[in-house]
Amino acid sequence: MDQMKITPMQWDGQFLILIDQRKLPFEELYVINKSIDDVFISIKEMVVRGAPLIGFSGIWGLVLYLKNVKNISFEDFERAANYLNSARPTAVNLGHEIGLCLKMARTYFDEKGTSQGLDLILENFGHKQMKKIYNHNLLMAKLALKELDERLGKKKYRLMTLCNTGALACGPMGTALGVMTHAWNEGRVEKVFASETRPYLQGARLTAFELSKLSIPHDIVVEGAASYLLRNKMVDAIFVGADRIASNGDTANKIGTSTLSIVANHYNVPFYVVAPTSSFDLNILSGEEIDIELRDPLEVLTLHGQRIAPYESSAFNPSFDVTDSTHITAIFCENGKITDYRPDQIKKVVYETQSGH
Amino acid sequence: MDQMKITPMQWDGQFLILIDQRKLPFEELYVINKSIDDVFISIKEMVVRGAPLIGFSGIWGLVLYLKNVKNISFEDFERAANYLNSARPTAVNLGHEIGLCLKMARTYFDEKGTSQGLDLILENFGHKQMKKIYNHNLLMAKLALKELDERLGKKKYRLMTLCNTGALACGPMGTALGVMTHAWNEGRVEKVFASETRPYLQGARLTAFELSKLSIPHDIVVEGAASYLLRNKMVDAIFVGADRIASNGDTANKIGTSTLSIVANHYNVPFYVVAPTSSFDLNILSGEEIDIELRDPLEVLTLHGQRIAPYESSAFNPSFDVTDSTHITAIFCENGKITDYRPDQIKKVVYETQSGH
Repeated sequence: MDQMKITPMQWDGQFLILIDQRKLPFEELYVINKSIDDVFISIKEMVVRGAPLIGFSGIWGLVLYLKNVKNISFEDFERAANYLNSARPTAVNLGHEIGLCLKMARTYFDEKGTSQGLDLILENFGHKQMKKIYNHNLLMAKLALKELDERLGKKKYRLMTLCNTGALACGPMGTALGVMTHAWNEGRVEKVFASETRPYLQGARLTAFELSKLSIPHDIVVEGAASYLLRNKMVDAIFVGADRIASNGDTANKIGTSTLSIVANHYNVPFYVVAPTSSFDLNILSGEEIDIELRDPLEVLTLHGQRIAPYESSAFNPSFDVTDSTHITAIFCENGKITDYRPDQIKKVVYETQSGH
Repeated sequence: MDQMKITPMQWDGQFLILIDQRKLPFEELYVINKSIDDVFISIKEMVVRGAPLIGFSGIWGLVLYLKNVKNISFEDFERAANYLNSARPTAVNLGHEIGLCLKMARTYFDEKGTSQGLDLILENFGHKQMKKIYNHNLLMAKLALKELDERLGKKKYRLMTLCNTGALACGPMGTALGVMTHAWNEGRVEKVFASETRPYLQGARLTAFELSKLSIPHDIVVEGAASYLLRNKMVDAIFVGADRIASNGDTANKIGTSTLSIVANHYNVPFYVVAPTSSFDLNILSGEEIDIELRDPLEVLTLHGQRIAPYESSAFNPSFDVTDSTHITAIFCENGKITDYRPDQIKKVVYETQSGH
């Protein structure tokens, strides 16, 4: 992972060091977590965000617990695991990783009858999980760069993205922004346009922060500028992440994604989704079935706690939208490139991977 | 003009009362202009904005001059006019209205040999000009509502707009927002969606302020939400203004307009431009010829003077974009509805009007 210049999460063999994402981009503050309680607070208070990162934090929290408290029973460990999971009960990855740790602990206690040595097992597991995600991210990025070369064959590319899908969100490297990191490391990026991503400005705050850290030339643009940029041929390709992908390739992602995909299609600019197979939800037939979370209107009406609209005005604030797979040039997952969006074809690619791990 | 509840500009027979647009939407402060110097400062310091409003201010400034200083020569008057015009030398409407005043003054001095009584002439002229614009706005709004009834035939409409094109920008009533005001007065509006219009937030600040004042139910939305709203059939029609319209109907308007028009077309939602004939520039063949102003990146990187992006990041900030006339369902001007975008057909409609005034 030497090409990364952002380390939102680091296990130094003793403590868990997290960048405080609430302070970004103006303050680069690292929080040293020395106990399971520290990690609990970091998760709960959103020092750490992004599904994979929260999941890894769960593993390191349990490692810290085992290092600090000796000679415990499985029941003690289980209580600690449940406590840590309650820091953000709706975070799927947190429950998932903690569940895997519990399974390993059960086996370990059954075999050894003690907690001694379990910390090392989980420590290795944490490194393994982070390494796995990194490898997946790198794999997807390589596939994406190959696609650009085959389709466009330029020396350097001008790429566009929306929201934040980099190391800060995904742990090592990232998905859509990971493509740009990888392409930059290969000397293949001319410039990145980061859509600011209202209302929460993940593009202007977090993506721009990562691009700055990596010294990648970039411009922040307002969302309305999409047509201007594409009409004037300033963008070669667009990459976005995914929150959920249906059986037919329809993709739920940050609000603005579908709008951008329609503009991209209009101007024939390739529009790609980059997401691990864990983002596919094959119980869902199409985007029609994806419920979209409506969030607090105050996110639109205020900025940094400052009101920007009249007090009498209300706002409508859908958090995600659904991009039709017909507008997606290709989806990249760790198991390959998907351009055939027939459910059985998607299932074949995703199942292959999901069962393979 | 009794249906208006916002009076950004009022001549009370003695003084010019302007709402201070810099303080909106949080403070409704009225500035009483008692002299030509007061008006000069109001124009220069942008207490008043919007091309037509700035033009009218020029007339009232000269009326104030004539009321305050008796027995002047034509040369005195000319000096005062030039002085007032220098408050914002690039504002076309200001120079235009002041030019008309100068012409009338020349004739008056030639006939009467005195300035006495000229103030009343210009006072009537000011009222006439404001009344004319109001009538034009109302005419366009009626045409637009008729179009909605013919095309959609609903009892009440859910309309969407972008930027600010209401009384605050245009003087009485407004263009695109004027359609909504008129339709609301006729009991024909269910709801308005106001796109917040980054980077300057004219939608969230000014359009929402006008809608609040008129008690029109409305929601502010981020620009990225366009596809979500239209996909979910939440909007019946979209109305926008225009900064400049080419011979073939291509329309330059606030950044984001073209993006919105592409999304509207994708979902078959009618997309209308509402603009007076004075917005047509028939020297320009198509949108390709329209130069787009690039504005200060700080408008994107800061909000209310507060930095929102990393200090190392830059921004690209085109101020306008060009909407293809193929994406415009119809253009409404005071002389009628335009759907035939062949240059000779547009010329016929525009010339008819421009020569008629």
